[in-house]
Amino acid sequence: MRASQFLISTLKEAPADAEVASHRLMMRAGMIKKLGAGIYTYMPMGLRVIRKVEAIVREEMDRAGAVECTMPVVQPAELWQESGRFEKMGPELLRIKDRHDRDFVVQPTSEEVVTDIARQDLRSYKQLPKNLYQVQTKFRDERRPRFGLMRGREFIMKDAYSFDRDAAGAKKSYEAMAQAYRRIFDRFGLRYRAVAADSGAIGGDLSEEFQVIAATGEDAIVYCPDSEYAANMEKAEALAPSQPRGAATQPMEKVATPGKSTCEQVADLLKVPLTRTVKSLVLATDVVDDKGQPVKTQVWLLLVRGDHDMNEIKVGKVPGLDNGFRFATVPEIEAHFGTKPGYLGPIGLKQPVRIVADREVAVMADWICGANEEGYHLTGVNWGRDVPEPVVADLRNVVAGDLSPDGKGKLAIERGIEVGHIFVLGTKYSKAMDATFLDEDGKPKFFEMGCYGIGITRLPAAAIEQNNDERGIIWPDAIAPFTVVVCPIGMDRSAEVKAAAEKLHDELAAAGVDVMLDDRGERPGAMFADWELIGVPHRVVISDRGLKEGQLEYQHRRDAGATKVPAGEIAAFLKARLAA
Amino acid sequence: MRASQFLISTLKEAPADAEVASHRLMMRAGMIKKLGAGIYTYMPMGLRVIRKVEAIVREEMDRAGAVECTMPVVQPAELWQESGRFEKMGPELLRIKDRHDRDFVVQPTSEEVVTDIARQDLRSYKQLPKNLYQVQTKFRDERRPRFGLMRGREFIMKDAYSFDRDAAGAKKSYEAMAQAYRRIFDRFGLRYRAVAADSGAIGGDLSEEFQVIAATGEDAIVYCPDSEYAANMEKAEALAPSQPRGAATQPMEKVATPGKSTCEQVADLLKVPLTRTVKSLVLATDVVDDKGQPVKTQVWLLLVRGDHDMNEIKVGKVPGLDNGFRFATVPEIEAHFGTKPGYLGPIGLKQPVRIVADREVAVMADWICGANEEGYHLTGVNWGRDVPEPVVADLRNVVAGDLSPDGKGKLAIERGIEVGHIFVLGTKYSKAMDATFLDEDGKPKFFEMGCYGIGITRLPAAAIEQNNDERGIIWPDAIAPFTVVVCPIGMDRSAEVKAAAEKLHDELAAAGVDVMLDDRGERPGAMFADWELIGVPHRVVISDRGLKEGQLEYQHRRDAGATKVPAGEIAAFLKARLAA
Repeated sequence: MRASQFLISTLKEAPADAEVASHRLMMRAGMIKKLGAGIYTYMPMGLRVIRKVEAIVREEMDRAGAVECTMPVVQPAELWQESGRFEKMGPELLRIKDRHDRDFVVQPTSEEVVTDIARQDLRSYKQLPKNLYQVQTKFRDERRPRFGLMRGREFIMKDAYSFDRDAAGAKKSYEAMAQAYRRIFDRFGLRYRAVAADSGAIGGDLSEEFQVIAATGEDAIVYCPDSEYAANMEKAEALAPSQPRGAATQPMEKVATPGKSTCEQVADLLKVPLTRTVKSLVLATDVVDDKGQPVKTQVWLLLVRGDHDMNEIKVGKVPGLDNGFRFATVPEIEAHFGTKPGYLGPIGLKQPVRIVADREVAVMADWICGANEEGYHLTGVNWGRDVPEPVVADLRNVVAGDLSPDGKGKLAIERGIEVGHIFVLGTKYSKAMDATFLDEDGKPKFFEMGCYGIGITRLPAAAIEQNNDERGIIWPDAIAPFTVVVCPIGMDRSAEVKAAAEKLHDELAAAGVDVMLDDRGERPGAMFADWELIGVPHRVVISDRGLKEGQLEYQHRRDAGATKVPAGEIAAFLKARLAA
Repeated sequence: MRASQFLISTLKEAPADAEVASHRLMMRAGMIKKLGAGIYTYMPMGLRVIRKVEAIVREEMDRAGAVECTMPVVQPAELWQESGRFEKMGPELLRIKDRHDRDFVVQPTSEEVVTDIARQDLRSYKQLPKNLYQVQTKFRDERRPRFGLMRGREFIMKDAYSFDRDAAGAKKSYEAMAQAYRRIFDRFGLRYRAVAADSGAIGGDLSEEFQVIAATGEDAIVYCPDSEYAANMEKAEALAPSQPRGAATQPMEKVATPGKSTCEQVADLLKVPLTRTVKSLVLATDVVDDKGQPVKTQVWLLLVRGDHDMNEIKVGKVPGLDNGFRFATVPEIEAHFGTKPGYLGPIGLKQPVRIVADREVAVMADWICGANEEGYHLTGVNWGRDVPEPVVADLRNVVAGDLSPDGKGKLAIERGIEVGHIFVLGTKYSKAMDATFLDEDGKPKFFEMGCYGIGITRLPAAAIEQNNDERGIIWPDAIAPFTVVVCPIGMDRSAEVKAAAEKLHDELAAAGVDVMLDDRGERPGAMFADWELIGVPHRVVISDRGLKEGQLEYQHRRDAGATKVPAGEIAAFLKARLAA
């Protein structure tokens, strides 16, 4: 490709709303162009990256035996009503009325459509297992689209759906995808982790996220440097402490803590470590009648250590809270605790409250909590003596240094960007949509399904978050818009430079290398800055001076300086570099 | 590919709403699946065809110097308001409101977005010419979607847009696309015609449609078997007759034609050829004030020969009708002609009417028209004597046998399916959206644009309309879902058959042939019927009996019977066939 035939449009300044590196750099490098909030045109330079991502994904999906189809972007609401998602999904689901006033949606995913295909076309167990995938435009009407392609509204996703006879088959299909995903992410040339994720209502452990490691990632991912353990923050288990509870050494005392409503403020005031304090969180569950009207409300008090954060996913698995919960209202809190939030605790309650303590809290002695009286806290509180032994559960996010659940070391935490997610769906959609096949015994059975996504347009953004410097992007070879850029200096003045540049370009192109020849006639400084910003990994500079010495200059985007390479050896030199 | 790993889902019966062969056969062959009116999933078998179409289009667009990008499917209304199309386009434009109640559209084309890109990124004449294209999902909310992919609501279109400094450059860009389109359609392996089309408001002759020839086509295309002339029906010029007008031989007489309101009925009644009658069409043009209110209405009478059809595009070019016209209302007709439609003519008008006669009508003598009195016609009417000489224009559709406008023979007419359209847009969008670049003289100039479409998902349907028989589809090699199908008979019983089939499959696949091995274990009849329906062009049958004789059976989808080929020669035999 020649630059003069391509569309190169770099910018000195990133737009003001570009908060993260990938957004800033993709805009500045002319890879994307904003059309509206969270809606971007993939410009030629960016589209080349996306196409390479797609090609790798397709190759590995095909290799894993999945079959590609393309489902419509605009989908009739009927199927979505059948699954219940038309009502359940919030304003993220973009709804449309056509000219006949019929309801449609713009697909955010395609479980409904693919399940509809399966119930029509997969009639016999002989046709199973089957895995259907598409690489297609999706839309989610995010409330706050931001970070460019990282959290856009319109995006490209690869979504795959597997159909199996039974749960064992579904697990095999899932494992095949887990392997395919590892091959895919290996090929991208990025540092990533496959982390265990919560599989939500489905249950079981069959859910993994593929996270590209980047300091700017939105997700905290937990791993054990000494073992294979890795999970996302929602999922990572906080083990019970190995030491038993210490003995009570202090009497329970009420201390004045006027205006100190957080654990941090109380610990500061009392000059004790934050780890001595206990945080109170008040939840509520409603019993509803068959018309959905609440008839009874249960209030819950959850206790985690002052320096810990509650984990809502884990809370949602506590028996009694596993059918949904909400935060209690201030009137509910005042009725049960006799005071307002900031001074709450498990002692001296006005009305019955179910108490659940985090595993860590359950082994604390001489701890500090609210006194259920404004401006006061209790110190020296002890389980058994001052308050009955609690129900105990894992309620909190792990922190670095916690024991690894596999017992093989301590946990570390890093940031990641979720670019893939695989999970077993079970019969959620097949039951909702009555999607069955005839099994060997002649009886209809519900499909056991799995679901496998890759954020095709998010991937380049994640790659940039992981690979950039003050000059711009640094693409891994596999997904670079161009692998090699040939930069001739003074091509318009020197016939030798022109001939050498064109020869090298043509040679590399003929060898299947994705090469760009910058024939725009820009000054060297501007030309180099463009390609460093765009992030082409391999650069060859051809100049009159170099040619006189029979030398070209090679520089990898990560190299501090250039390497002189004899002109006759450059093709072989590059080939070795590209294969590496 | 092995059939057991693919999704093959053929149907015995086509759905009742499938009116044309391509719709019926694509449904029966499991290539598409209906999700809603005019909305289809491209199933694996159909998607393979679409991908081959896309690949050929991309290769030739790239070769012609166009650069690919991808514009959003969901587009903010602002740009569409800027161009005026948000208001002008009817209910075909699918409109959406997002969660913030802002207006969006689902792209039917992307002139607005691409012009917005150009005005931002193409700042200098040095960057021109530039041609940007995309292959992307489009939506047009057709009132009557039908014929499957032929007239769907959601479809895939390749749309390209060229930007030039001046009209001469735009013409060059257009010519480059015209050449690329010829290469593309040649490669598809279909019979097609590039026909001159009307370029609408833009004027000039720079518009061509690419029509796949098929008896079921919706468009009439006009060509001269003795020359290169080809045009669509809207465009094809009807020359003035070469003979002069004959002399008047009859007196004008009023004859009773009670209840006979069409030319056919009158000709029947009077026992004269239909070519002696003249059809009256009444139009109206409104003069509006600066608030858009009509202040004056002009009524027009257009005359074409009884056996001819009026051509609205041509009528729209008659001076005075070229700013828009409408059909006159019945009250307007009664006020001007004193009678109701069915008995109208140019003689004895009540109020001034502007009369335009078709070229053919202008040379008629002793003709018949309505008497402007219910139940009566006039015979023996003659120009000059009974009615003043008219304004003359080309108002009608050509018919087979008309003289070719290039003077090289007579016109023939066949049916076609429009699958491509290229035209010069001029400055229509660049002016509406103030899209300029800095020219060499330092002054801002409007881009001269061109626009080039190919109906990617319509193409397979058109190919089928042209290539099918009672057994199913017959794909040209270039766009067949698979080029070769290997059909082993009794693969489950015979190790020899299995080994031979797998060997041939693997050999062909390794040689880059798109080969399918039917390993489903179907009976021969069902297996052959499936592949004949699906339309794979080349089939090899492997049987125990054949293998004993050292023979395989080859049959092209168009062949009446099979050809025996020695097993050792089959690869070379096929290679020769595929290259042909």
